[in-house]
Amino acid sequence: MVARTVQLCPPTDPLQLESGKTLGPIQVSYETYGTLSPQRDNAIFICHALTGDAHVAGRHHDDEKKPGWWDGFIGPGKGIDTDRYFVICANVLGGCMGTTGPSSFDPDSGNPYGPAFPFLTISDIVSLHKRLVDWLGINKLLAVVGGSLGGMQVLEWAARYPQGLAAAVVLASGSRLNAQGIAFNAVGRRAIYTDPAFRDGNYYDQSEKPRFGLALARMIAHITYLSEQSIELKFGRRLQHSEDLTYDLRKETEFQIESYLHYQGKRFVERFDANSYLLLTRAMDYFNLEMKHGPLPDALGKTDARFLVVSYDTDWLFPTTQSQVLVRALLEAKRHVTFAELESPHGHDAFLIDSELPMLKDLVEPFLARTHEASAIRHA
Amino acid sequence: MVARTVQLCPPTDPLQLESGKTLGPIQVSYETYGTLSPQRDNAIFICHALTGDAHVAGRHHDDEKKPGWWDGFIGPGKGIDTDRYFVICANVLGGCMGTTGPSSFDPDSGNPYGPAFPFLTISDIVSLHKRLVDWLGINKLLAVVGGSLGGMQVLEWAARYPQGLAAAVVLASGSRLNAQGIAFNAVGRRAIYTDPAFRDGNYYDQSEKPRFGLALARMIAHITYLSEQSIELKFGRRLQHSEDLTYDLRKETEFQIESYLHYQGKRFVERFDANSYLLLTRAMDYFNLEMKHGPLPDALGKTDARFLVVSYDTDWLFPTTQSQVLVRALLEAKRHVTFAELESPHGHDAFLIDSELPMLKDLVEPFLARTHEASAIRHA
Repeated sequence: MVARTVQLCPPTDPLQLESGKTLGPIQVSYETYGTLSPQRDNAIFICHALTGDAHVAGRHHDDEKKPGWWDGFIGPGKGIDTDRYFVICANVLGGCMGTTGPSSFDPDSGNPYGPAFPFLTISDIVSLHKRLVDWLGINKLLAVVGGSLGGMQVLEWAARYPQGLAAAVVLASGSRLNAQGIAFNAVGRRAIYTDPAFRDGNYYDQSEKPRFGLALARMIAHITYLSEQSIELKFGRRLQHSEDLTYDLRKETEFQIESYLHYQGKRFVERFDANSYLLLTRAMDYFNLEMKHGPLPDALGKTDARFLVVSYDTDWLFPTTQSQVLVRALLEAKRHVTFAELESPHGHDAFLIDSELPMLKDLVEPFLARTHEASAIRHA
Repeated sequence: MVARTVQLCPPTDPLQLESGKTLGPIQVSYETYGTLSPQRDNAIFICHALTGDAHVAGRHHDDEKKPGWWDGFIGPGKGIDTDRYFVICANVLGGCMGTTGPSSFDPDSGNPYGPAFPFLTISDIVSLHKRLVDWLGINKLLAVVGGSLGGMQVLEWAARYPQGLAAAVVLASGSRLNAQGIAFNAVGRRAIYTDPAFRDGNYYDQSEKPRFGLALARMIAHITYLSEQSIELKFGRRLQHSEDLTYDLRKETEFQIESYLHYQGKRFVERFDANSYLLLTRAMDYFNLEMKHGPLPDALGKTDARFLVVSYDTDWLFPTTQSQVLVRALLEAKRHVTFAELESPHGHDAFLIDSELPMLKDLVEPFLARTHEASAIRHA
């Protein structure tokens, strides 16, 4: 694995944002795995989800506690085989894991951008990733792969750069967020906005960060990542600390599910920035492939990339119906599409939790191999 | 309609709470509709849900903006016909609509109870309602009726006072809250606890109340009362104020669904008390009929009351599976039970929104009539 940060989009050639503003220079933090073939035809770009980062697989050093977030799926001999493919993953624009975002220093002011960081869309995130891929000297990606917010990026890639990819793999995602999803994002952001420590986004020089608001936003969102079934199986009504109910209203973590959510919230604020959370959830709300690129069959029909669309039966944030909309549009556009609804108790998080299971590998591995073969034949 | 407040549970005979504490005196705010028959055999007790009150039907005066919360279902000629039945509804213990709760004055201290108000359970709420019914001189209710948290009270009535009711009507409820429900209550309470204006519950003498936290709790909960389908139909991705996206992160109510949730939150804090919300959601979490009264067939088999159990197909807070658990237990106990899963786009709120539709009336009206007839025959 190679982990690097590169500066792109110099002020002389800044990134054009969808809002009309420009941004540059931009630091991009990315990692690569495996080896780029001499023909440069084996590169796969991974788009991470809302709170992911460039560290998609492996360990940076032996005593790193946990490997990259999709380590079950990406690596030697895995679903995306890094012995065969050159895998790239970059932290998204507006994030807080090395790529320029609101917590980064604004070279103009010498202070963090904070709320002055420009409004972002999925399209802007993809624009920057395209710059990175160009800078890496790759004309055409073998595949762009992502789940959830990452899947939205994949769809945007296909619509914006139809010649830039031979395959698209979209997991647990859709062409736009439904109203219930917007609602959950809205209450999460509200938790941050109403935290007095948020100070309209100007908290970087404060000792107190909006940790209560950010933790609460994560706790709310986390419920939507699980399924009713998985919460019931994993926690049910079991108590955390004792056999007996305490009849004490101050006990906030009496049930195991409460303790679990508090833990998730606490861990999250250690690694994530509130301004980034606001920006990226809003980018998710705004994403609407059809509005930007026309009716879906037109938007997705521009590319001749092969599509693999995967949903999970207990995912209620991006239910299977969302994937079916994509599949119908691709069929209408007479494009190659493979679709599978996978069974899982894990809800939306199945695209992460179940990613090491054979059922995903058995879909993705031959799909990529056939795509690679087909593009090799075309090269020959 | 008659609206009254009565003082029950004098200090010499206080209410024994499940926590082991006692409470008294207690003010109970209640309303009645219709006329109690000379045989006193036509009384129906309505149990309201989490944020309801005693004002279940009609208008207190002609220029009252909205009628009682179940006005579509209760009234002359309606599903519960107040020309035939004597309907009683009381605000729950711990509430903030006239019955003693944390915002009431503690006669000992002369100040509001605040966080000193004792911990409450569904059983305590029902204990107080039983005292009211006794005080009204009614030995046996024709029916106890409720939805959601109200349905839990109905089940508790049946298990605690098996001779006290001839029929039980349980809508959109269950014998216990599932873990996902506890999770949503937990994040709602967290919003209140982390609001600096909450001050550990001591805010009654402050000009600033924990309105942000309480509003956010309501916004979160409100999402769970709707169905994905109904939010999509009602709001979809429509914008509130303009035709075009603003690309402005400060716009918190850009989508209609956001504006709607903000409005719901704002309206809620005008009428509800944060300490009551904490208490009552926790009572809901704690409710577990089986844990308190033994296996469900035993708990529900103590009474020979006839049961009507109703669920709604898009309710994901109390899904149909929860009702089926009740029905199976009643069948195992060889009790009379009628069950219906009604179709509605309205999710959990269907028990309120759809309550004026013929489909509910067509179930409840003959069910009550038959029960009344059967009990009249027994009287004769």
